[in-house]
Amino acid sequence: MQAIRQVCGTDPVPLHAPTFAGQEWAYVKDCLDSTFVSSVGAYVDRFEDELARFTGARHAVAVVNGTAALHVALLLAGVQRDDEVLLPALTFVATANAVHYCGATPHFVDSQKETLGMDPAALRDWLKHSSEQRDGVCINKQSGRPIRALLPMHTFGHPCDMAGLMEVAGEFRLTLVEDAAESLGSSYQGQQTGTLGKIGILSFNGNKTITTGGGGALLTNDTALARRAKHLTTTAKQAHRWEFEHDEIGFNYRLPNINAALGCAQLEQLPGFLASKRRLHDKYRDVLAGIPEVSLVSEPVGCHSNYWLQALMLGDQVASQRDKVLAATNAAGLMTRPVWNLMHRQRPYQHCPRAPLPVAEYLAQRLVNIPSSAGLA
Amino acid sequence: MQAIRQVCGTDPVPLHAPTFAGQEWAYVKDCLDSTFVSSVGAYVDRFEDELARFTGARHAVAVVNGTAALHVALLLAGVQRDDEVLLPALTFVATANAVHYCGATPHFVDSQKETLGMDPAALRDWLKHSSEQRDGVCINKQSGRPIRALLPMHTFGHPCDMAGLMEVAGEFRLTLVEDAAESLGSSYQGQQTGTLGKIGILSFNGNKTITTGGGGALLTNDTALARRAKHLTTTAKQAHRWEFEHDEIGFNYRLPNINAALGCAQLEQLPGFLASKRRLHDKYRDVLAGIPEVSLVSEPVGCHSNYWLQALMLGDQVASQRDKVLAATNAAGLMTRPVWNLMHRQRPYQHCPRAPLPVAEYLAQRLVNIPSSAGLA
Repeated sequence: MQAIRQVCGTDPVPLHAPTFAGQEWAYVKDCLDSTFVSSVGAYVDRFEDELARFTGARHAVAVVNGTAALHVALLLAGVQRDDEVLLPALTFVATANAVHYCGATPHFVDSQKETLGMDPAALRDWLKHSSEQRDGVCINKQSGRPIRALLPMHTFGHPCDMAGLMEVAGEFRLTLVEDAAESLGSSYQGQQTGTLGKIGILSFNGNKTITTGGGGALLTNDTALARRAKHLTTTAKQAHRWEFEHDEIGFNYRLPNINAALGCAQLEQLPGFLASKRRLHDKYRDVLAGIPEVSLVSEPVGCHSNYWLQALMLGDQVASQRDKVLAATNAAGLMTRPVWNLMHRQRPYQHCPRAPLPVAEYLAQRLVNIPSSAGLA
Repeated sequence: MQAIRQVCGTDPVPLHAPTFAGQEWAYVKDCLDSTFVSSVGAYVDRFEDELARFTGARHAVAVVNGTAALHVALLLAGVQRDDEVLLPALTFVATANAVHYCGATPHFVDSQKETLGMDPAALRDWLKHSSEQRDGVCINKQSGRPIRALLPMHTFGHPCDMAGLMEVAGEFRLTLVEDAAESLGSSYQGQQTGTLGKIGILSFNGNKTITTGGGGALLTNDTALARRAKHLTTTAKQAHRWEFEHDEIGFNYRLPNINAALGCAQLEQLPGFLASKRRLHDKYRDVLAGIPEVSLVSEPVGCHSNYWLQALMLGDQVASQRDKVLAATNAAGLMTRPVWNLMHRQRPYQHCPRAPLPVAEYLAQRLVNIPSSAGLA
C-alpha cells in the first residue's frame, strides 16, 4: 500500500478516471449549437474515420457500447442460434452475454500466465480432444453443436498470442472475432489489436483509455461486412428519402453524435494517454521492485500494451490474502479490485461447456488491479 | 404546400429539430468538468427523479434508447421465447423488433381512425375469434402459442383508447405494456401516457419532443419491477465493493451521465415545448382550414396530445397522390414523410400472425407528417 501511495499520492484515488484536457468542450458545444446531437451529425463519421486511421483498420463503425459491438460482430461472423463460441473464462461478463444474445452458447477455455489471454496450445489440445470436423464445420462432440467462432479478449490491454490463436482458428475453421474492448492502442507485432481477426471491437465506456460516455466500435478490413454492420446497427432501414423499409431485423445501436464529439476530442489525446499509462507502469515497477510478494503485470514479449489497467500478481505466499489486500486498500481510499469472477462460476453460465481452466483459476486468485488513470503519471 | 410555407417560412425546414435554449451547455459542461460522463454520475439519478415527477410514475429507469427500454419492458412483463405479443401493424419497426429480441413473435392488429392507435373493439372481436383461454393464459388457436402481452403505441403522440385496451387486456389476461416512445407529455383522461399499463417506455431520440442524443426510459409504479429493470439494464451485477458477480443475463443498457445531463436540461423546457407544439398545431389548423382535400390530425376526445409529429390526413380524392405530395414537398426543402410502412409488409415480419388490418391500410395510404419542431411556433 505504501508503494502504491508513493505513486498515487495520499488522496482517495479511483481505479480509472478519464482526462478531459483537449477539445472536449469545443466539440460537444459545437454539437449542441448545431442541434445535431443524435443520429445525424458529422462527428460520428469523423470519429469513425479517425478510429480507422489510428488503428489501421479499413473501416470502423461506431456503436452505442462495446457490448452492442460484440453482439453485431458475432452475428456478422455467422454465429447463429444453437452454435457455440469459444471465449476465455477470464473475461468481463459482456463477452459471454454477447454470445447469448445471438442465441448461442459460450464455451469457456483457459488463459496463459504470460498474456492473461487465451492459451493457443491448451486450446488446440482441447479442440483435438473434444471436437471433430464435419463438412468443414467444427462440431463439439459432446453437445453436437457447431463451434462457430473464436473470441479472444485482450485482458487489461495486454495482447493475446494472436499468431498462435490465428493458427488454431485456421486449423479448426473457426472465425476469429477480437474482443479489443480493453486494448485500444495496444499492438501485436506492430499491428493494432482489433484489426487481426475478421472483425474486432472496441469499447469507450467511462473507465476505458478513451471515453465517449458510453460507446463502442466495430473494426474490419472487409468493406461488405462494414456496410452490413452499419445497416444492422441502424435498424436495417433501406436508404430512401421517405419510405420506412427494413429488410431484416436490425438494432438501434448507433452512437449519438454528442458521444462521438466527445470521442473525437479524446482520440486526439490518445497518444498522450498511452505515454502516461506507460510512465505509470514504470513508476509502479520501480516502487514495487523491492516487494518480492507481488509482481507487476507487464506487456508480453513482442507486444506493445496500452496498459489500460495496471495489475499486481500476488505471489503464492500471499495469494490467500487477496481479499485482505482488497479490503485494506479500498478502506484506505485506494480503489483496487480483483479480476472478474470466472465466467463458468457465474450463475447463468455454470452449465456451459468448458475446457479445464487451471490457469484461469490461478490468475483469478492472484490478480489485483490498482489505480490506473492516465492522469496519475 | 403554400399553406405549410405560411407556417414554416421559406427556408428549408426539417421534419423535427430539437431546441437547446436552456441549461444544456451548463449541465453538459458540469458533467465534463466532473469527469463523470459515463455510468457513475448524478445526472442519471436526477433525470430519473424528474421524469418520475413529471409523468407521475412512481419510478423511472433511464436507458440507452427507447428500443432497449421496450426490450426490457417486455422481459419484465414476462414475455418469453415462443410467446406472441399483440401490437399495431401501424408502428415504427422498433416495437416489433423488441418483441423479436425476446424470442417472441409479433402478432399485428388493427388501428382506429380516431386515435391512430390500437382499436379495442376490433381487438376484442379478433381475440374472441382467434384465441382461447387455457389455464389462465391466452392462447393463439392457430399457432398454439401463448399471447402474453398487449403493446399499444401512441402514434405521433396521440393517446390510444386506453380504457378500451385495459378492458380487453383484463378480459383476455394480457399484460399491458405501453409504447409511449412518441408521447412524452401526452395524457389520457388526465393521466400521462406511459403510466397506464404495468410498464411504459419513453424515447429521447434526436427527433423526439425532448432529446438526450439517444436515450429512453422505463416507467412503472411497481417498485420490484423498477429494481429489476435497473438490475437487468446494468449487466445484472450484484452490489459489492469489488466482486463481479452477475446473477442473471443482463444488458449494457444504462444511459451515460452526459446524455442524462442533456435530458435534465431538456426536461426543464418540456412544458414550453408542449405549448409551442400545440400552437404549431393551431397555426396549421388555421392555414389548412380552406383546403378540403386534406385534414389535420388532432388529439382524440378526452386526451391531451403532445403533438409530437403533426400529420395530414389526405382525403379520398388525393390519397392516390400521396407520393407526389411527398416528392414535391421534399424537393422544395419542406421535409415530409409518410407514416411507416406497415409491419406485416416488412420482409422480416411478413409471416407473422395478424388480424384483418383495413384501417391500418387506410391510414398508411393517407398519413403524411409535416414539419413539427417546437421551434416553428
